[in-house]
Amino acid sequence: MDEKTLVISTLLAEGKFSALHSQLCEMNSVDIAQEMEQLETNDLLRVFRLLPKDASADVFSYLDSDSQERLVNSITDKELELLVDDMYIDDTVDFLEEVPANVVRRVLQHADPQTRALINRFLRYPEYSAGSIMTSEMVELHDYYTAKQAIEHIRKTGIDKETLYTCYCIDHKRKLVGSVPLRRLLLCEDDVLVSDIMFDEDQLIFVQTTDDQEHVAEIARKYDLLSVPVVDNEQRLVGIITIDDIVDVIEEENTEDFEKMALLLPSENEYLKTGVFKLAKNRIVWLLILMVSATFTGIIIEDFQDKLALIAGLTASIPMLMDTGGNAGNQVSTLVIRGLALGEIKIKDYFRVLFKEIRVALICGLTLAVINFARMMIIRHITGGNAETNVFFVVCLSMLCAVIVAKCIGCSLPILAKLLKLDPALMAGPMITTMVDAITLLIYFGFANMMIVPTLK
Amino acid sequence: MDEKTLVISTLLAEGKFSALHSQLCEMNSVDIAQEMEQLETNDLLRVFRLLPKDASADVFSYLDSDSQERLVNSITDKELELLVDDMYIDDTVDFLEEVPANVVRRVLQHADPQTRALINRFLRYPEYSAGSIMTSEMVELHDYYTAKQAIEHIRKTGIDKETLYTCYCIDHKRKLVGSVPLRRLLLCEDDVLVSDIMFDEDQLIFVQTTDDQEHVAEIARKYDLLSVPVVDNEQRLVGIITIDDIVDVIEEENTEDFEKMALLLPSENEYLKTGVFKLAKNRIVWLLILMVSATFTGIIIEDFQDKLALIAGLTASIPMLMDTGGNAGNQVSTLVIRGLALGEIKIKDYFRVLFKEIRVALICGLTLAVINFARMMIIRHITGGNAETNVFFVVCLSMLCAVIVAKCIGCSLPILAKLLKLDPALMAGPMITTMVDAITLLIYFGFANMMIVPTLK
Repeated sequence: MDEKTLVISTLLAEGKFSALHSQLCEMNSVDIAQEMEQLETNDLLRVFRLLPKDASADVFSYLDSDSQERLVNSITDKELELLVDDMYIDDTVDFLEEVPANVVRRVLQHADPQTRALINRFLRYPEYSAGSIMTSEMVELHDYYTAKQAIEHIRKTGIDKETLYTCYCIDHKRKLVGSVPLRRLLLCEDDVLVSDIMFDEDQLIFVQTTDDQEHVAEIARKYDLLSVPVVDNEQRLVGIITIDDIVDVIEEENTEDFEKMALLLPSENEYLKTGVFKLAKNRIVWLLILMVSATFTGIIIEDFQDKLALIAGLTASIPMLMDTGGNAGNQVSTLVIRGLALGEIKIKDYFRVLFKEIRVALICGLTLAVINFARMMIIRHITGGNAETNVFFVVCLSMLCAVIVAKCIGCSLPILAKLLKLDPALMAGPMITTMVDAITLLIYFGFANMMIVPTLK
Repeated sequence: MDEKTLVISTLLAEGKFSALHSQLCEMNSVDIAQEMEQLETNDLLRVFRLLPKDASADVFSYLDSDSQERLVNSITDKELELLVDDMYIDDTVDFLEEVPANVVRRVLQHADPQTRALINRFLRYPEYSAGSIMTSEMVELHDYYTAKQAIEHIRKTGIDKETLYTCYCIDHKRKLVGSVPLRRLLLCEDDVLVSDIMFDEDQLIFVQTTDDQEHVAEIARKYDLLSVPVVDNEQRLVGIITIDDIVDVIEEENTEDFEKMALLLPSENEYLKTGVFKLAKNRIVWLLILMVSATFTGIIIEDFQDKLALIAGLTASIPMLMDTGGNAGNQVSTLVIRGLALGEIKIKDYFRVLFKEIRVALICGLTLAVINFARMMIIRHITGGNAETNVFFVVCLSMLCAVIVAKCIGCSLPILAKLLKLDPALMAGPMITTMVDAITLLIYFGFANMMIVPTLK
């Protein structure tokens, strides 16, 4: 790719427009867009005008919103009209959602009335809904067509459809009654009726315009669909969502989960394109909440302060105990959150998960406790510390309990969140660490009170 | 053995199937296989169907390849599916290495995706490579076909192909020379040559059998492909990877990242299907490593123990400081790891990221410090604690520094890992927490030494 970048820039600088045009004809739209984003507005416009006619809408769709805006502000009304005409509705809507109002207005002015009406309707669907990511360029068939008629219909009308590979069958009220993959049409006899080979009622899979995009992605992944039909509340076909957009949704949803699990407010933009204040704002909320909740650990320690001062080696193990508890909780909450997201774990599995976690915690906790005991003995031997062996015993016992508590909390909170219709991803590492910290300290000081404090007298 | 052979043949001849079944239940798989090899194909099939369900895969594995081939050619698709499902992969591979190509193809077609991946892998492709996830059911066209011939070819051979929607063009040496979407074929005139409408050399996108599956997913996502062709090192077409498998790869890679970030060893299976010991094993390694590294925080605290005992309120803030540092580091490492995974952040962006993080850290750190100061004053007022105000000052100053250090480490480690060709996802929360903990304590006690200890005299 780098080599090609050089070629474009060089050809542009040398004014070899004809060679540049040939070059552009051979390149992939994605690569062209990636390189155009680096150009000055003037050069951007020049390259855009040199694009082969049938590629310009495609290339434009792949540009980032900044470059799209620069371009729209530079091209003529006529060019804008052609561009909007050539673009798929879902791409136009994506682009319009990112640019300032004046650009939106200019684009809408130059769309033909029908397109304008469509765009306006699409812009009104709630963010992250199926309606907001669908496109209206799908193949519609009537169920009384024969396979031959259907294929003829596709060949006649297919050129401006986003996909031909799944066709949807509607009745006279535009109600969705079936779907038929192109491969079925192509592989059957000419005179078979569409209604005989289509997936109908029982097998038909569709979503509502108001469904969350996450639900769409789930459906598509589960049934290996290349496109998902979208219907309104009277089951009339209004659009489809194609697999390329679904792949983007999957990555978006994953990013959102990653962010939530790190207790970040979700960001709309790529990291490098987000401002410092915006980044700080996304982070400060949860940092503050967690810092303030740390008041509890502070109070617990303060209460025990006098005894901590008397017992050598007790304070030194606090960070290790807290970290181990936090890490153990983090591991299981991540697994459960991921399992819930992929549908591998359901709410009804809670007791199975809990029982499993208790057993895992016993194995992990015992191993850690034993090794930790050995570690502490060795360190004392090396550094000549003055901690008593019963302190080590309390530390290791607390560690076992902390791991068990952490695993139980770590698997319970995400499932509880799901039950309460909250996002399980919020119940991740940092959140659980804060809870486990306080409980671990209570356990630790409880054991110390029982087993060490009496020996002090 | 001879006696038993006699029994089997006799029972079979007499049509005593129920007695034969009981007989088979009691026999050793090796013996059964040895005898079955002697039978005619019809009888072979009848005995195979009488085998106890859990033994049939075992018996099949012991059959010689000739009998295996005869059997596979006789049983139904459903039976084959069950068989492949039940067999050990190495047995399947042994068997596949001996039988003709058409049998191999039929077996692969009826294996579930996971099994197919395994079989492909065992057939010498590295794990997680393009070769291990590809399928061989693709449409191959010659570039001298006309559109009409191509469509006829597809209609004739398409029934057993995994996808028809992108066809691949090969030359007489099976070298991949182009690809053509079915929609192009369908929408053009009958007599157009495939070579005139296919994407050729410059635009053709393909992967090598040895490429990582993550690379395949990236390519497919970037170029919105429905399938990616796989070639060997002489650019001969050997398979394709379809979008449904690519979606699975994307989710797999995301799961792997989630697991690594929670410091879990990657698991092959769904959570509920993984045994307790396996789960414990995946977790214990990193828990142990982190617990042992907590030795440092222990030593740091032990060193400062005497002074901690003298200064009220200092110990109580340790958990809060450590947690805040850990959370702050966790937030940025998650963003950077995700950015690297999606290709939004490159190694060369390091200084931009670092500079940005320092500014974000200043904003977050100052806000947290100020609010924390107020919080501590309020808590002291309510609880009537005896901590000095200069302790609060040290806590808040340390917090600011801890946040800055955490943000710098949080953005540096993942990028460093990438530079060293390690997986950035390993440099997540728990890893960074452990490092930040020790540094935070050093800063905290350093400030206390400078600003509080002198006032004690």
